[in-house]
Amino acid sequence: MTATRTESDSFGPLEVPADKYWGAQTQRSIQNFPIGWEKQPIAIVRALGVVKKACALVNIEQGNIDAKLGETIAAAAQEVIDGKFDDNFPLVVWQTGSGTQSNMNANEVISNRAIEMLGGEIGSKKPVHPNDHVNMGQSSNDTFPTAMHVAIGMMARDVLLPGLEKLHAALVAKSQEFKDIIKIGRTHTQDATPLTLGQEFSGYAHQVAKGIERVKACLPDIYELAQGGTAVGTGLNTRKGWDTAVAARIADITDLPFVTAPNKFEALAAHDAMVMFSGALKTVAASLFKIANDMRLLGSGPRSGLGELILPENEPGSSIMPGKVNPTQAEALTMVCAHVMGNDAAIGFAGSQGHFELNVYNPMMSYNVLQSMQLLGDAAGSFTDNMVVGTQANTQRIEKLMKESLMLVTALAPTIGYDNATKVAKTAHKNGTTLREEAIALGFVDGETFDRVVRPEDMIGPKD
Amino acid sequence: MTATRTESDSFGPLEVPADKYWGAQTQRSIQNFPIGWEKQPIAIVRALGVVKKACALVNIEQGNIDAKLGETIAAAAQEVIDGKFDDNFPLVVWQTGSGTQSNMNANEVISNRAIEMLGGEIGSKKPVHPNDHVNMGQSSNDTFPTAMHVAIGMMARDVLLPGLEKLHAALVAKSQEFKDIIKIGRTHTQDATPLTLGQEFSGYAHQVAKGIERVKACLPDIYELAQGGTAVGTGLNTRKGWDTAVAARIADITDLPFVTAPNKFEALAAHDAMVMFSGALKTVAASLFKIANDMRLLGSGPRSGLGELILPENEPGSSIMPGKVNPTQAEALTMVCAHVMGNDAAIGFAGSQGHFELNVYNPMMSYNVLQSMQLLGDAAGSFTDNMVVGTQANTQRIEKLMKESLMLVTALAPTIGYDNATKVAKTAHKNGTTLREEAIALGFVDGETFDRVVRPEDMIGPKD
Amino acid sequence: MTATRTESDSFGPLEVPADKYWGAQTQRSIQNFPIGWEKQPIAIVRALGVVKKACALVNIEQGNIDAKLGETIAAAAQEVIDGKFDDNFPLVVWQTGSGTQSNMNANEVISNRAIEMLGGEIGSKKPVHPNDHVNMGQSSNDTFPTAMHVAIGMMARDVLLPGLEKLHAALVAKSQEFKDIIKIGRTHTQDATPLTLGQEFSGYAHQVAKGIERVKACLPDIYELAQGGTAVGTGLNTRKGWDTAVAARIADITDLPFVTAPNKFEALAAHDAMVMFSGALKTVAASLFKIANDMRLLGSGPRSGLGELILPENEPGSSIMPGKVNPTQAEALTMVCAHVMGNDAAIGFAGSQGHFELNVYNPMMSYNVLQSMQLLGDAAGSFTDNMVVGTQANTQRIEKLMKESLMLVTALAPTIGYDNATKVAKTAHKNGTTLREEAIALGFVDGETFDRVVRPEDMIGPKD
Amino acid sequence: MTATRTESDSFGPLEVPADKYWGAQTQRSIQNFPIGWEKQPIAIVRALGVVKKACALVNIEQGNIDAKLGETIAAAAQEVIDGKFDDNFPLVVWQTGSGTQSNMNANEVISNRAIEMLGGEIGSKKPVHPNDHVNMGQSSNDTFPTAMHVAIGMMARDVLLPGLEKLHAALVAKSQEFKDIIKIGRTHTQDATPLTLGQEFSGYAHQVAKGIERVKACLPDIYELAQGGTAVGTGLNTRKGWDTAVAARIADITDLPFVTAPNKFEALAAHDAMVMFSGALKTVAASLFKIANDMRLLGSGPRSGLGELILPENEPGSSIMPGKVNPTQAEALTMVCAHVMGNDAAIGFAGSQGHFELNVYNPMMSYNVLQSMQLLGDAAGSFTDNMVVGTQANTQRIEKLMKESLMLVTALAPTIGYDNATKVAKTAHKNGTTLREEAIALGFVDGETFDRVVRPEDMIGPKD
Repeated sequence: MTATRTESDSFGPLEVPADKYWGAQTQRSIQNFPIGWEKQPIAIVRALGVVKKACALVNIEQGNIDAKLGETIAAAAQEVIDGKFDDNFPLVVWQTGSGTQSNMNANEVISNRAIEMLGGEIGSKKPVHPNDHVNMGQSSNDTFPTAMHVAIGMMARDVLLPGLEKLHAALVAKSQEFKDIIKIGRTHTQDATPLTLGQEFSGYAHQVAKGIERVKACLPDIYELAQGGTAVGTGLNTRKGWDTAVAARIADITDLPFVTAPNKFEALAAHDAMVMFSGALKTVAASLFKIANDMRLLGSGPRSGLGELILPENEPGSSIMPGKVNPTQAEALTMVCAHVMGNDAAIGFAGSQGHFELNVYNPMMSYNVLQSMQLLGDAAGSFTDNMVVGTQANTQRIEKLMKESLMLVTALAPTIGYDNATKVAKTAHKNGTTLREEAIALGFVDGETFDRVVRPEDMIGPKD
Repeated sequence: MTATRTESDSFGPLEVPADKYWGAQTQRSIQNFPIGWEKQPIAIVRALGVVKKACALVNIEQGNIDAKLGETIAAAAQEVIDGKFDDNFPLVVWQTGSGTQSNMNANEVISNRAIEMLGGEIGSKKPVHPNDHVNMGQSSNDTFPTAMHVAIGMMARDVLLPGLEKLHAALVAKSQEFKDIIKIGRTHTQDATPLTLGQEFSGYAHQVAKGIERVKACLPDIYELAQGGTAVGTGLNTRKGWDTAVAARIADITDLPFVTAPNKFEALAAHDAMVMFSGALKTVAASLFKIANDMRLLGSGPRSGLGELILPENEPGSSIMPGKVNPTQAEALTMVCAHVMGNDAAIGFAGSQGHFELNVYNPMMSYNVLQSMQLLGDAAGSFTDNMVVGTQANTQRIEKLMKESLMLVTALAPTIGYDNATKVAKTAHKNGTTLREEAIALGFVDGETFDRVVRPEDMIGPKD
Repeated sequence: MTATRTESDSFGPLEVPADKYWGAQTQRSIQNFPIGWEKQPIAIVRALGVVKKACALVNIEQGNIDAKLGETIAAAAQEVIDGKFDDNFPLVVWQTGSGTQSNMNANEVISNRAIEMLGGEIGSKKPVHPNDHVNMGQSSNDTFPTAMHVAIGMMARDVLLPGLEKLHAALVAKSQEFKDIIKIGRTHTQDATPLTLGQEFSGYAHQVAKGIERVKACLPDIYELAQGGTAVGTGLNTRKGWDTAVAARIADITDLPFVTAPNKFEALAAHDAMVMFSGALKTVAASLFKIANDMRLLGSGPRSGLGELILPENEPGSSIMPGKVNPTQAEALTMVCAHVMGNDAAIGFAGSQGHFELNVYNPMMSYNVLQSMQLLGDAAGSFTDNMVVGTQANTQRIEKLMKESLMLVTALAPTIGYDNATKVAKTAHKNGTTLREEAIALGFVDGETFDRVVRPEDMIGPKD
Repeated sequence: MTATRTESDSFGPLEVPADKYWGAQTQRSIQNFPIGWEKQPIAIVRALGVVKKACALVNIEQGNIDAKLGETIAAAAQEVIDGKFDDNFPLVVWQTGSGTQSNMNANEVISNRAIEMLGGEIGSKKPVHPNDHVNMGQSSNDTFPTAMHVAIGMMARDVLLPGLEKLHAALVAKSQEFKDIIKIGRTHTQDATPLTLGQEFSGYAHQVAKGIERVKACLPDIYELAQGGTAVGTGLNTRKGWDTAVAARIADITDLPFVTAPNKFEALAAHDAMVMFSGALKTVAASLFKIANDMRLLGSGPRSGLGELILPENEPGSSIMPGKVNPTQAEALTMVCAHVMGNDAAIGFAGSQGHFELNVYNPMMSYNVLQSMQLLGDAAGSFTDNMVVGTQANTQRIEKLMKESLMLVTALAPTIGYDNATKVAKTAHKNGTTLREEAIALGFVDGETFDRVVRPEDMIGPKD
């Protein structure tokens, strides 16, 4: 039996755990929504702290609230930001679609904590009322979307971009390290003309560089905040300047360039900025999938695969096959990428489903976007540390495969024509011989010409 | 500083927390995969216990293992089934794609617990070795997919189907309760011919009934188990009859009709059964979305919406608008449905990405399928309890809207022809009058005929 | 300048091409929906013919219509079934979401053709009116969904299942042909224990066999027809028995077991049967993707890939690389599979979006389902004929790769233990030596034991 | 029997229709890929003409080709651009994944047409060879992706953006027209605080404005062209400067700012630019879905819906219900939006599936992107012309609904507190009375205060 205290809301009194700061509406949500195991992400909890603090400060500034009360609210909100109350946010994602109950969870925790700071009685709503004071000038309809954007902005800076940048740097380094290793190219999974392993990795690096660019290009829309729209976008129950002042405070607290959204009706009723941002995440996922998949195929073997890359061995690979080592980091990353694509589908769907003045898929959309970011950032980092950095080229194998390739014949085509070059390749293929042998035997070139023209080291770029 | 003990695997020794039963490979996975916040679901942990117990019992039966060792392994596995070691499974979803590390987690916990039971030294691998004894006759490649199917089978019975059946029963009851309430139909969101509110709810009930059927129709493929395929599907390192015996034991432990998969190559390399099963979940999601969305629109108001349904009031709806009540259960459910659609996209993608003898998206696919099931089952239950059961018809409003409808004119069409009936409806619409007035004024029928033909109560079914 | 004639509907007169049979509503749709290049599929047009014929016959049967008129309508509808009027159905998919305009297109073409047969004046609506006679007892809301199911049922029988069955037969044949070829297995794309090439293909064959089963398992719901629900599901303006009689007639015309839907409210307001059916198509797509992708990777080369399969050479592969041959059939098929997954996402979304008595995504949902079926059926057939049938095993290469594999060590583990076996494999890998050499050198077995235990031919199944 | 002539490629001779310009490889593709009904879009055909012309001009410039030959090739390519050979491109989307066969189709048609212009014999490959001359300096691997980007760039300018801009302008105009109409807001589909109808439409307009921005923000990546990468990205068989020169020529021909891609390895092996672009299209689809869905719900009725908007009547709405009018443009548009989401899922999947130096999902990805663009552009235009422009406000109905709303109580909350305001609203709701009556009866305010504070016209923006 846990000790409880009584809290109340407009639906009546309710027992809540005595050691928690939340109130009646939070408790009611726990009881009404016994759905799933996914809690509101901590990133959202902390972002709600940011919003509540910023609002309290502006309320003081505008003279809407007694300064003492306002400062205490701001102090309590700072404790939420600091993670002191992470365990006071018990609600699941699958609640009211506006996030109202999580907003009230923040209001209740902060008001009770502020009451405590001021020597009042927790649960009394005096002298700090969760709605009238903590939520002053706010509606869940603008507060929760604001918290979503704040959380995304912070996670982009703190998790996603660092992960991608680490991966990018490692791929660039590998591209440099491998720049003189000429290898066979493969198109349609079939042998093609040569390139350097460094060039191949430069493609990967470029994909990630563009991914970083794409994420950054979508952030300005995320930096636009709904706060100030209140219930339906009009800003009812705020005073002029509130929206820009709150955004400025939030920018100050987070050190990120948040601004107020130019059209609050759009900011409440739609989450297009998040749909677009998720599209960038999906694009990053498509890139990383390709890179991880290539690397595991190039590292396949050790004896019966392509074997061009030697991947780091991190752990035993099989519970039954002794000595087996697997590209497990590539697997974790490709699982993440597939998952992010699923999240993107869910986000796009939900983003289209707003009705009139509100989209009520807030907690689900933010859960998915934040999860995609966390996973891509973490997995990119882990993949870098545990796979990319330790990857080596199997130069012997690479050289062997490259030299045997029939597609070196492409260099001959400008000299002897496409149709004749085809004959050379097909004959060598049929006979299991070399291009050189057959090109001479078919009378298309002499040996000297062949040796001058068919030089892998001359095939890795345009001619002068 | 947590106390630790040394465990080892083929990569060397490693410190693990002294109060945990897991070994070196689990610890290595913790260190190598710092990705995300999603742990292997408990349903998978328990299912691994089921598999390990069944295998131990068959190993005794076949004389592969000393009976005492085997029985101790089975006893330790039973403790995993009972949830005693839930906190000894710390690994995340984003690990090796075969689930090898979670399989080894189970092997390590069970072997150490069995060693403890037998008075040995934890971490010594004696007399119970995680690979040689607990994993005897098994590979992660057949064990993890088996655990996935076992977990799905159990969750279907214990969570998903009960949730859907509860919803179905409530909708059937409402259909009965509302069977005499004639209301306006709506097609294209526009006024159409009448039906009863009971008929409308019968459509919802039928959707859910079919959803239950569809889930059940997909279960037989889930009941097929990969166990016995070992590393690549051949059954290497098992003895004949192992696969069927293990499946029978699993059926016995779980009381579900599990059987051995007829083709183990397919069972390891593909997860088509799960892709199909997820398709059924997605279909259920599409159904529930429609039902929840209809109900919130029919319950919109209280004064400026359609207002045909009175939805239960469960909690305060707005942090800014006093007295507001919202259809929050419908919101939670529609968020779940959109999320399930995203999961389905991820599952389909992952299901297509097997290479050769193995699909390495196991933990991600099972995480998504299990999450979809948990969410649909829970949300269906919550939606039933907190919304459907308490929904009432606003009969006054329903009757008012029905009687004013211009689409009652459809009943006239067989008598006066489509083109004349159109004139009646259009004229009444333009003049803001009734159909009866205009039908008579236009000279198409007399009053008596109109009253005989245009009777809502005769419009809710075929004529004799 | 095309010659025109005047047609009219309740919105007024309109010029239509004189050489076409369609009327005012069709023409209005052409003008109002200048969207995209996707016309209603011919399969839908023909299915509308089926429905119109069946309804006319039942109208005669029930005495709802003059027999002569009814028979002429049936005769005109038969011409639609026979494809005589394919070019009289000009409407695009992106029209009214109920498919009303395509239903009216059928009504107009058939009524004008019937008028012509009866010697009347085309466009006069006499003696055959498109609504009062051709559409008698019908609404677009039941007619179009019925036509969708009829079209799907026919395409399943005529295109999809034959394509899959052809592929299945070819894979079974290859599985037989390759049954004695022992090859290296690959898990995680890395070398694993051996299996036969026949076993590998048996997994593919089993996937397709299950796919056929899954499609067939979803057909009974497709065989349920909405016809008889009319406007909102009540059956207004029909007589009792109409629904079953029409379904029986449609079954007769198509030779498929169509029946009337047990709940017409569900049948109009939702398309769950199609969502589920699309889930089966997606599952088939996941299977075929895996098969095609495996085959192209196993056939990669000719000199620098895995090279285990020799794929048929069908056409020049490159405009620049002479002699290049590519697995183009696998590419067409995997493109189809990815496309089908996209279609499935669209279908699931649309299926959830019904409002009240109607789902208004009919033309789009049927377009996507039919496209998925056509593509999977066609591509499976083309892939079979042009790739699977001609695929040969490169037995020399297969044997070489298999014999070198370190994973044969797995057979030793039951004898010397997992940890010792690991040492053998790792040492051989490091030294580039054979397992046999290192197992003996490490003192774990003698040569005779090794040779007795490590026999690939004994590793492809369970032991006695 | 169609007359034929003999063409040949490295696989041998083949009969082609005598009245067509295509050659052996095109014909071989027709025969080898009997899959589906989707032809390469005309936009791709014309774009291939652009690429071929630009390459011919640069080949002359660089002295790679005889000027006379080069100029004739350019002239023939211009005819492809002009649409003269649209019916000479018979290939389907489901062919080789590199688009090689469509590239060869262009090479063959242009070479035969150039031969004809030069008085040679069609099919002789003299004096203009499809590979050696028309394809000079090119590979399908860079040419087809270039054509994809060119086609997308042109369709963005010519179809997508004009459609969106037309819609945006109409929504802005409506927002102005409706700026003084105060109406009830709706959140969670429930009554909320008021806003103006103009504000509501300003949200829609802003969504579209942002959509246009997002599309434009993604175009620079589309403007980067792969041309010059040739087979694997190295630029083999080109001369330095080729890539930038061709891009400049293409920019010149199309009047769009095309440039050469900075990393050709990425440009061939991945299509991230298209995945991202599709993400923008999906975001636009989410926006347009919301707008169309809102408008049909606000226009629902005419007597039993929300009825705030009067939507234009464009055509008869029902084949059975006389006088029915439906929001068909909204239906076409929402079908398009759902379809675009499906396309996006397919594109993301395909974009992740490149192998090594090439992504072989080219025709499928470009088909889907171009289809999404065409559909969104067309449907936005049709929706504007046929629905938005003619939409009127039902001011009487709007005023009635607004005045009755209980959520006007929100204006009282700052004066009497959230909890007391809740009591007022709940009591009025229960008693079916007005807020004013109950606020006074409960003793919270006097009538004068109420009238001063609760003024809808003061509730549509922040206070001073």
